[in-house]
Amino acid sequence: MIVDCHGHYTTAPQSLWDWRKQQVDGKRPDTLRISDQEIRDSVEGAQLRIQRERGTDLTFFSPRAGSMEHHVGDARTSADWSRECNDLIHRVSRLYPRNFAAVCQLPQSPGVKPENCIAELERCVNELGFIGCNLNPDPSGGHWKEPPLIDKWWYPLYEKLVELDVPAMIHVSSSCNPAFHFTGAHYINADTTAFMQLIQGDLFKDFPTLRFVIPHGGGAVPYHWGRYRGLAQDMKKPLLKDHVLKNVYFDTCVYHQAGIDLLLKVIPADNILFAGEIVGAVRGIDPETGHYFDDTKRYIDASKLPAGDKKKIFEDNVRKVYPRFKL
Amino acid sequence: MIVDCHGHYTTAPQSLWDWRKQQVDGKRPDTLRISDQEIRDSVEGAQLRIQRERGTDLTFFSPRAGSMEHHVGDARTSADWSRECNDLIHRVSRLYPRNFAAVCQLPQSPGVKPENCIAELERCVNELGFIGCNLNPDPSGGHWKEPPLIDKWWYPLYEKLVELDVPAMIHVSSSCNPAFHFTGAHYINADTTAFMQLIQGDLFKDFPTLRFVIPHGGGAVPYHWGRYRGLAQDMKKPLLKDHVLKNVYFDTCVYHQAGIDLLLKVIPADNILFAGEIVGAVRGIDPETGHYFDDTKRYIDASKLPAGDKKKIFEDNVRKVYPRFKL
Repeated sequence: MIVDCHGHYTTAPQSLWDWRKQQVDGKRPDTLRISDQEIRDSVEGAQLRIQRERGTDLTFFSPRAGSMEHHVGDARTSADWSRECNDLIHRVSRLYPRNFAAVCQLPQSPGVKPENCIAELERCVNELGFIGCNLNPDPSGGHWKEPPLIDKWWYPLYEKLVELDVPAMIHVSSSCNPAFHFTGAHYINADTTAFMQLIQGDLFKDFPTLRFVIPHGGGAVPYHWGRYRGLAQDMKKPLLKDHVLKNVYFDTCVYHQAGIDLLLKVIPADNILFAGEIVGAVRGIDPETGHYFDDTKRYIDASKLPAGDKKKIFEDNVRKVYPRFKL
Repeated sequence: MIVDCHGHYTTAPQSLWDWRKQQVDGKRPDTLRISDQEIRDSVEGAQLRIQRERGTDLTFFSPRAGSMEHHVGDARTSADWSRECNDLIHRVSRLYPRNFAAVCQLPQSPGVKPENCIAELERCVNELGFIGCNLNPDPSGGHWKEPPLIDKWWYPLYEKLVELDVPAMIHVSSSCNPAFHFTGAHYINADTTAFMQLIQGDLFKDFPTLRFVIPHGGGAVPYHWGRYRGLAQDMKKPLLKDHVLKNVYFDTCVYHQAGIDLLLKVIPADNILFAGEIVGAVRGIDPETGHYFDDTKRYIDASKLPAGDKKKIFEDNVRKVYPRFKL
């Protein structure tokens, strides 16, 4: 089985975005009405077609990351919007239980304590069968005003993640800071920033079973693995394999062979989860290969990694990281 | 000849930091008095010893990046501090003209127009023989409030860089945002952010001879080269080799063999400049190799790159990018 741990519902029906526009405009949104057929139409020609074409089996599916927009409105805005998005993800996963497993958006809001997210997380996991969540380390959308992830500010949410035994993918949303292009800078920077925060602290001493997935191949981290090992050493921290790699995983959303080869060489196979971020950040065909940039399975297939390690990356690791995924 | 294009005066005599403390504390600083012998002592056991030990010849030398601190005080604070730092760099380069070529810090200040830096840039280049400068894309120190590098806000400074025929290394200073560790997140994020900004615009149509060096191996960019090629394509921009690589160069401050190998594989040799960022971000010995993490010459020597390409990286390219370097 080949499991893609990182896909967003970027192709959701227009009614969802209309609902959101009404909400953002300060109107009371109409009740969201989307038929099963509309949902089918939204994924049949996109995510499902791509699964078939590329030979992947199932995608861990969450709301469009760029549309979480935790910086818009207040906690109530975020709660209502998250509920609509998560309910729709739930419907997708029920219509296609063999193709999608549900991952939720959290109703974060800048400066609002993370325990505010617990009710929606519990609803999604306990009532709707979600297997994980996306945690935004910067709900301000590019201004980075929240305490670092190692701060006790986040602990109540971590306690709930541990109790429910679900991991969090550390994933920012769109950027409202013109310095940061969202998929080209903000996403990658957030991955790098989060990992460095984890090096600086000792979070996993307090939460030995907490699990984070850092997407987009870990941002800059594997490319600068020597820098991170060296910084940790200068800071008198344990070796990274002991300090963070029992709890931190990288996905494979890296869109060229040389990048994937580096990731597979530097990061232990036990810490890598297959993903493509589909339909996502980069949509075109690489003129140098003739294949889609985001067809990451192709790069892993072409790598020299032993078959056992490939199986870990495609399937075994996600079962350990996401134990609520049972298929 | 082996030229390291990226070194900072991290070992400057204590009197310099005392001067700075007086300034930051709002006192009128005493006149800075540092003897030639103090300068010799500050580099003999550090940068010069390392040059000898590692077999490099000359370092492009600029004030300590983390201490530029453009966010402290106002434009006058920054002007006075930059002048002291640059004068000291000038003295180092005069004492050791075969070991150091001078690169200046600019007196930037948040929200202050970049033309404010022109007088100090001209003084350094025309009067003191400096060959380049460091340009901070985020003088706020981690809050990213300045317009992107492609904005006309920066154009008067670019016009002067072109007129003087000196390049700018895009280099942030310390972070006063607790989200960003300075050498582990802010530096790397800034490199990534700057490159993405350059993709988004068409700056080099307006300044075809402007040259930027992006340090720390280009941040996350080479690792995500497929993503950046794909984003540029989705944005209907030219191929990156035509869009930015006639004007943008990456240094080799990547502290492990696999990272350097990726850089050398993905980025054309014409766009890579040798550097170690010494004495800099990571100071220890890699327990996996027994050599210093920041001994980047060793990784390039060990790579499979043809000798001609290595010579480009060690010497020929810097002569093209920094034509005022004459040795």
